[in-house]
Amino acid sequence: MPSFRQYLPILDWGRSYDRRALSNDLIAAVIVTIMLIPQSLAYALLAGLPPQAGIYTSIAPIVLYAIFGTSRALAVGPVAVVSLLTASAVGQVAEQGTAGYAVAALTLAFLSGGFLVLMGLFRLGFLANFLSHPVISGFITASGLLIATSQLKHILGVTAHGHTLPEMLGSMLSNLSEVNWITVLIGVAATAFLFWTRKNLKPTLRGLGVPSLPADILTKAGPVAAVVATTVAVWALGLADRGVRIVGEVPQSLPPLTLPGFDPDLLGALLVPAILISVIGFVESVSVAQTLAAKKRQRIDPDQELIGLGAANLGAAFTGGFPVTGGFSRSVVNFDAGAETPAAGAFTAIGLAFAALFLTPLVYFLPNATLAATIIVAVLSLVDPSILKKTWGYSRADFSAVAVTILLTLGLGVEIGVAAGVAISVLLHLYKTSRPHVAEVGRVPGTEHFRNIHRHTVETDPSLVTLRVDESLYFVNARFLEDLVQRRVTTGTTIRNVVLQFSAVNEVDYSALESLEAINQRLKDMEVGLHLSEVKGPVMDRLRRSHFLDQLNGQVFLSQHDAWRALAVGKRSAA
Amino acid sequence: MPSFRQYLPILDWGRSYDRRALSNDLIAAVIVTIMLIPQSLAYALLAGLPPQAGIYTSIAPIVLYAIFGTSRALAVGPVAVVSLLTASAVGQVAEQGTAGYAVAALTLAFLSGGFLVLMGLFRLGFLANFLSHPVISGFITASGLLIATSQLKHILGVTAHGHTLPEMLGSMLSNLSEVNWITVLIGVAATAFLFWTRKNLKPTLRGLGVPSLPADILTKAGPVAAVVATTVAVWALGLADRGVRIVGEVPQSLPPLTLPGFDPDLLGALLVPAILISVIGFVESVSVAQTLAAKKRQRIDPDQELIGLGAANLGAAFTGGFPVTGGFSRSVVNFDAGAETPAAGAFTAIGLAFAALFLTPLVYFLPNATLAATIIVAVLSLVDPSILKKTWGYSRADFSAVAVTILLTLGLGVEIGVAAGVAISVLLHLYKTSRPHVAEVGRVPGTEHFRNIHRHTVETDPSLVTLRVDESLYFVNARFLEDLVQRRVTTGTTIRNVVLQFSAVNEVDYSALESLEAINQRLKDMEVGLHLSEVKGPVMDRLRRSHFLDQLNGQVFLSQHDAWRALAVGKRSAA
Repeated sequence: MPSFRQYLPILDWGRSYDRRALSNDLIAAVIVTIMLIPQSLAYALLAGLPPQAGIYTSIAPIVLYAIFGTSRALAVGPVAVVSLLTASAVGQVAEQGTAGYAVAALTLAFLSGGFLVLMGLFRLGFLANFLSHPVISGFITASGLLIATSQLKHILGVTAHGHTLPEMLGSMLSNLSEVNWITVLIGVAATAFLFWTRKNLKPTLRGLGVPSLPADILTKAGPVAAVVATTVAVWALGLADRGVRIVGEVPQSLPPLTLPGFDPDLLGALLVPAILISVIGFVESVSVAQTLAAKKRQRIDPDQELIGLGAANLGAAFTGGFPVTGGFSRSVVNFDAGAETPAAGAFTAIGLAFAALFLTPLVYFLPNATLAATIIVAVLSLVDPSILKKTWGYSRADFSAVAVTILLTLGLGVEIGVAAGVAISVLLHLYKTSRPHVAEVGRVPGTEHFRNIHRHTVETDPSLVTLRVDESLYFVNARFLEDLVQRRVTTGTTIRNVVLQFSAVNEVDYSALESLEAINQRLKDMEVGLHLSEVKGPVMDRLRRSHFLDQLNGQVFLSQHDAWRALAVGKRSAA
Repeated sequence: MPSFRQYLPILDWGRSYDRRALSNDLIAAVIVTIMLIPQSLAYALLAGLPPQAGIYTSIAPIVLYAIFGTSRALAVGPVAVVSLLTASAVGQVAEQGTAGYAVAALTLAFLSGGFLVLMGLFRLGFLANFLSHPVISGFITASGLLIATSQLKHILGVTAHGHTLPEMLGSMLSNLSEVNWITVLIGVAATAFLFWTRKNLKPTLRGLGVPSLPADILTKAGPVAAVVATTVAVWALGLADRGVRIVGEVPQSLPPLTLPGFDPDLLGALLVPAILISVIGFVESVSVAQTLAAKKRQRIDPDQELIGLGAANLGAAFTGGFPVTGGFSRSVVNFDAGAETPAAGAFTAIGLAFAALFLTPLVYFLPNATLAATIIVAVLSLVDPSILKKTWGYSRADFSAVAVTILLTLGLGVEIGVAAGVAISVLLHLYKTSRPHVAEVGRVPGTEHFRNIHRHTVETDPSLVTLRVDESLYFVNARFLEDLVQRRVTTGTTIRNVVLQFSAVNEVDYSALESLEAINQRLKDMEVGLHLSEVKGPVMDRLRRSHFLDQLNGQVFLSQHDAWRALAVGKRSAA
């Protein structure tokens, strides 16, 4: 049953699973589990949910992705950008801390999972291409800044609200009197320690003669060290009584069975954010998965990835979680630690289930400021303003898309930002194709080549105008061509024939066909012939379905050289 | 001052105005005035406004267009589709018959005029190209059906509401008991007479030896005859007392000075409909103006047309009117009657002002059914379902755009219909370019030509793969190319070099640049060279601004033949 196997990649790698793969997967799982415990708590905080939600979200989704996903190394769970999008979407329909908020988060995961599965079944993965690279880069950079800013309140120990940069900053500034200096001390120390660990610990350890793998593991365990140290400090010094906010009681339990809300109003309000989260999560996940797969000459199937991620989100919706996707840092850690199959993910899930059952009392005194520090250090690596410089140098259109995405994401929120980025990319593309490059060409003397008369020394014939259209012809530029031909022909009284060289025309839609008919009619009225040359097969097939070729006041030439030989009758001059 | 003259085309034609032009313009004005009186009343009815509004709307706008417009023959005033859009938009914010309704109509004209002027000043006329020919055809056809249906209630003498086909039909059916049979008699007789006049009167008169021009004028006066006959019948037989609805009292007055509403809520509610009306009105107007200008080898300036139409709408807003545009039928009549300059429009305005002052008592007994009949006969000529058949034969994508536009316009209303039409056109275009045609090419033996290996007998080299990409490369299809190259290269173990032939690539945006870099890196890892051939000048200029060419693991060849000579080293086989 190939169609059944197609949807269950686990049947492929599961059959050849052996002891070596098992031991590699187990090692990777231990490393990833250690890294995921603080990260899961932190992303729950970012999403506005209780800490255990972060751990629950890292269990069922991982197992489901292991069954349905095609990437061998992708690690699925809560990630920074998706957690931010969750907080933004759910914050619009419920108050943080209420039961309604948690249900809305489940519902968001449910809608997102359902949407992803549907996209996968209908093989609509290509829709993610509408997010151009510059828009994604701009969005990730702006999101990183937003997330880091949103965590500042935990470092300062103040209350703050809002989902845009001005809102957050304004809210924090107006509550600045609440600042708790012990919290600031913990937060700043943790942040500095984590930055130092990330940048300098591995080289330092290697310099001390520690082998590469242990050095790497110790570096990745930096957040755990920060968690342990600050938790012990808060407990030993009784800092919770001096205003330092702590994680507090976390229930000891496996993920509960939960139900998302099915209230039509709630579903309606969360549908658009769910689609946005799905698409952004999918794009992030697929690019990570593709990068890792290419390193081992493996391939991933984007449409099956939709199903894998969709199943993971549906799993989150029914086990007390919130939307998930494949995370960059955890996937890289998983890959570097030697994970060979999705079974590594399943072992990670077991480790996290163990943590959920037995380790949660240990984080009672963990200060929120430490979690905020781990988030800030993680997301600032996403911020890469160099995309502005790179696109500025290459193309103003791409630069505009990045700039608009960054500014609107920071200023008006993530949803408007990314929607505007997509819209402006599409509009700029349409604008560019609406005024296509059209070159008037002549023959390079003594050859069969034809080149732009303004760039090369070529032969021309005053009775013949040849225009090479460097764009597909469709509704957005159809009238442009009409105007252009009209203008060119009315300026030359000796013109007897016009050739449109179609070597770069990949499509002629119905609007363009009507424009060609109008051009043909007008030239006929002026007793000027209209000819085509170098029409591509698919375009010719299409034109044959209309009456245009019957009415054409001229011929279709296979090559521009044929057209020249047949039509260039006047005196030839090298321009 | 050329920049000043640019905005006042009247300075061009006004200087050479002579007695011959004056007499031609006067004759045209008389004919158009006779035609416009019943038409203006009818379109006011369609827009849901009192009859005099139709006449007012035909005075100031005509004069303003004569000053600012570039078409010599365009006749501006209320037209069917724009009146329907007005009724739909204003009906959503006010109750028909109230003072608020009239103010909302003024506001709509004001917003529409302001938007058009701004578009003109910023030279954004090209935006109208986003409405493809099939979408416009579908929209006009569906609007014609909607308008005809909306007038059926006047023919039947029943009350009915709604702005979609199901709403109107349902509303009419549920009020069918109200039918007034005398009204039906008048309406059906008038409709039949007008259809007959339009189709058969001119040939009949010509057959009787009447010269062409008078025959034409008599034909155009058909609506006036229907108006006179039915008005006299209603008056003489006292039919108004038997339930036939009549126009009733119309104030005798020149257009009043009015102010649109500036309430922010009202402005907000009408902004989107105003933009829609502007764009649709502009597209209709420009296509009429271009058709008429081409017949006299004149040109119109689309950006100045925006200013002309915008001024006309602002004029309507301050003189008791509603949104206007250049109408097809009246412009053709004006042109055929010999109008030479926009002065003909000014004379028409004088004629209508005379009518507004002195003739309105004559239409007291005019039955609404007659006005409805003139509208029905006028708009059914717009209905052209053949666009469905034509696009079906040519391209399924264009057919889908037409079908969606027609169905949604009829079923959900004009605004959703046209917005969906534009959206689906753009999406289908992007979808088509997201999976571009890519041909693997080989050399036609003994020539310098390279053709698709699946369509022609060509030489190939097992160590060399040449892919001709038949589409510009941009974010929507960037990843497609990555996948395609990866797939092709991993299926052939002997491949040493890949050439991408760029003869049809008109653009490489930043996303595509990143994809090319990824392809280059992956091929380098596999020890396969990546080469480009036949890169167009503008694309090469762009690539030179990046580091791609420095990192390229291969060369850029001027022609595909050069690439073949340099790289085809293995054994060649004719495929």
